[in-house]
Amino acid sequence: MYDLSHVTLGAITETPESEFIMRRKKVDKILEEKGLEGMIFFNTSSIFYLTGSSLIQTERPMVYIYRAAGDSALLVPRLELEHASAHVKNCKIYCYPEYPGERHPMEFLKDIVKELGLENATLGADGNGAPAVQGYKGPALTEIFPDMKLTFMPRMITEMKIYKSPYEIMLMKESARWGNLAHMLLQEYTKPGANEADVSARASAEATRIMLKTMGPCYKPTGYDSRGASAGYRGQIGPNSYFPHATMAALTFKPGDTLVTGAGASIQGYNSELERVMFVGEPSKEQEKFYNYAITAQKAAYAEIKPGKKCSDVDKAMMNFFKDNDLMKYWRHHTGHSIGTGGHEAPFFDVADDTLIVPGMCFTVEPGLYVEGLGGFRLSDTLVVTETGFELITYYPTEIEKMICW
Amino acid sequence: MYDLSHVTLGAITETPESEFIMRRKKVDKILEEKGLEGMIFFNTSSIFYLTGSSLIQTERPMVYIYRAAGDSALLVPRLELEHASAHVKNCKIYCYPEYPGERHPMEFLKDIVKELGLENATLGADGNGAPAVQGYKGPALTEIFPDMKLTFMPRMITEMKIYKSPYEIMLMKESARWGNLAHMLLQEYTKPGANEADVSARASAEATRIMLKTMGPCYKPTGYDSRGASAGYRGQIGPNSYFPHATMAALTFKPGDTLVTGAGASIQGYNSELERVMFVGEPSKEQEKFYNYAITAQKAAYAEIKPGKKCSDVDKAMMNFFKDNDLMKYWRHHTGHSIGTGGHEAPFFDVADDTLIVPGMCFTVEPGLYVEGLGGFRLSDTLVVTETGFELITYYPTEIEKMICW
Repeated sequence: MYDLSHVTLGAITETPESEFIMRRKKVDKILEEKGLEGMIFFNTSSIFYLTGSSLIQTERPMVYIYRAAGDSALLVPRLELEHASAHVKNCKIYCYPEYPGERHPMEFLKDIVKELGLENATLGADGNGAPAVQGYKGPALTEIFPDMKLTFMPRMITEMKIYKSPYEIMLMKESARWGNLAHMLLQEYTKPGANEADVSARASAEATRIMLKTMGPCYKPTGYDSRGASAGYRGQIGPNSYFPHATMAALTFKPGDTLVTGAGASIQGYNSELERVMFVGEPSKEQEKFYNYAITAQKAAYAEIKPGKKCSDVDKAMMNFFKDNDLMKYWRHHTGHSIGTGGHEAPFFDVADDTLIVPGMCFTVEPGLYVEGLGGFRLSDTLVVTETGFELITYYPTEIEKMICW
Repeated sequence: MYDLSHVTLGAITETPESEFIMRRKKVDKILEEKGLEGMIFFNTSSIFYLTGSSLIQTERPMVYIYRAAGDSALLVPRLELEHASAHVKNCKIYCYPEYPGERHPMEFLKDIVKELGLENATLGADGNGAPAVQGYKGPALTEIFPDMKLTFMPRMITEMKIYKSPYEIMLMKESARWGNLAHMLLQEYTKPGANEADVSARASAEATRIMLKTMGPCYKPTGYDSRGASAGYRGQIGPNSYFPHATMAALTFKPGDTLVTGAGASIQGYNSELERVMFVGEPSKEQEKFYNYAITAQKAAYAEIKPGKKCSDVDKAMMNFFKDNDLMKYWRHHTGHSIGTGGHEAPFFDVADDTLIVPGMCFTVEPGLYVEGLGGFRLSDTLVVTETGFELITYYPTEIEKMICW
């Protein structure tokens, strides 16, 4: 039974250690099934998921050597030693002086693996070496450890993340509250003649300010939470909202504009997604028509979201609505995506994704219609799948008369 | 001769096509030397560098098939077709309906490669398939094209980016101006009792507002410029500034705090980096001592920056200053990094990086000292290497008496 009844919004403090223990137990189970003694992680968001470490990577790799039975180790650059020691529990912290450094960081990894007696071990790894980001280059794991028996499991944590615990749902609900505030302010400040960049910055800054005051000093943001709450337009103003993924263009609002918004907040690394269609002044008949299509397409998708259905069923229902109403010329993308610590995650509400829908999965539902000259029509809501269907995490109004900016 | 005399700050409009042509000519030269007919790019920041396309990737891969002699092609998801067609020149745009989609995007890549007659070609590639981001998974290039003769050159564009054109320097100088304004406002609003999150959001939003008004509607931001100008503290407030890469903690300023700042702006995707040490109220003798060490360490590094020297010479000079003054217990990281479209890029001012310093390279110079209980002492400036030495791109004051927040 997937029970969300104790998901309440009280004080948000640091993520409890019990949450990380539960996640690592899932890793243990996979390692046991595969006959592996441990796992090497290079992906910093996986390391964050398993330990709470939100250290900033830059060109300097971080490596988490996890062992089901015994001590785990985290290798960080010298500049993160004290920071990691203060924040990461249940793990021995090692450091290398610097990257590139006189000895390559992977030489230090060799030492640790030797110290742990794992040179000839049978291990899993999330990649064949540290990722080549921000100027980093280095050898492959298979070059460093020719005698290790390695199984690559790049998607292990991605697949674990699909199912959210009640604690994770609570963080996503907290995220949705502050995304909602940012969006309310965005709507309030949007007026003819105002600029999207100003309105977005003002709404985001004020929502973040109130969020931090409301949560109080017991709230300890992680490195993933530095943007606070935000709401904006990403350039989807007037005819430019026709581009589903426009980018910020510092446009000015004009009467008659169709607007596509986006809002959210990162809380302990967890996100929610709220998007709405708004209008500058009373919408025209044409705007109203496409708005209603977007609402009805979302409802068609909702009708299929319950345990036992497949992700593809949801997208097919949405596509059928488009086809039955001769709307395919306005179609541009699938219905939605999984969401959690990442903005977009697998699985997808897509005709080709046959993943079974299960309680604890979180998705966005965001069918869109894009009409040249008139604009984009896409509402996005975030939901969690329950035993009998789903529960919405976002809760901004959807009635067209509440979508007007005066 | 590396001539910066015409680097003036006038109207910033779209990047001129001549800049992209120059970059692609450099690619042509490498391909010719290696006997390759073309190159497949999956990295979106490389595609941006070569075409100006700043489309948002999400789970949907983008592929640029570049041919020195003949038409190039860009494969995008359906939702980006019109957007790409409006913004990307000199390249045929293809699209696939969606990812995962009934046919995998790489099947569409197969079709294009066949249409271009390249199935058996000798090509370069920046990776063996699209990157596994935001839930994407897909086959390797070597699986899709078993008959292609592929040479992997993951660092081709990274290495080209090291040398900046006068146009790129102009964008970085523009970035530094708005980073400077954001930092001035940050300093003005920082007072005992204020909160870092508020001060940072206010300074960033105001600087962005003024920047956009100053640049006017002829300025066309790219997808990389959506954050505008920004300045903040990333949690480096008081004793917490001891962590070189602290993260935003919503801390309150107190008299006596040592503060470490960071400011910049993204202009057509180009960045600059400005960091300062500031004090809440008059600095103590101890704070002044470490501030002066940071200034002197930066000067020691500057003395080595000129064509003909190696990157390692700069870091060695900085390290010698630390060693000669018995400061190694406060040392945490190398002197600096290359900067441009990425925040951190190779090469590095690091004892182990023997890259030759050449005009047109841009670096940060940011030695730091970290004193437990007292805080961090790190100033970062951005510079461009010239024929005879270097020119600073950032220009915020460094005198300690100008570093006080009242």
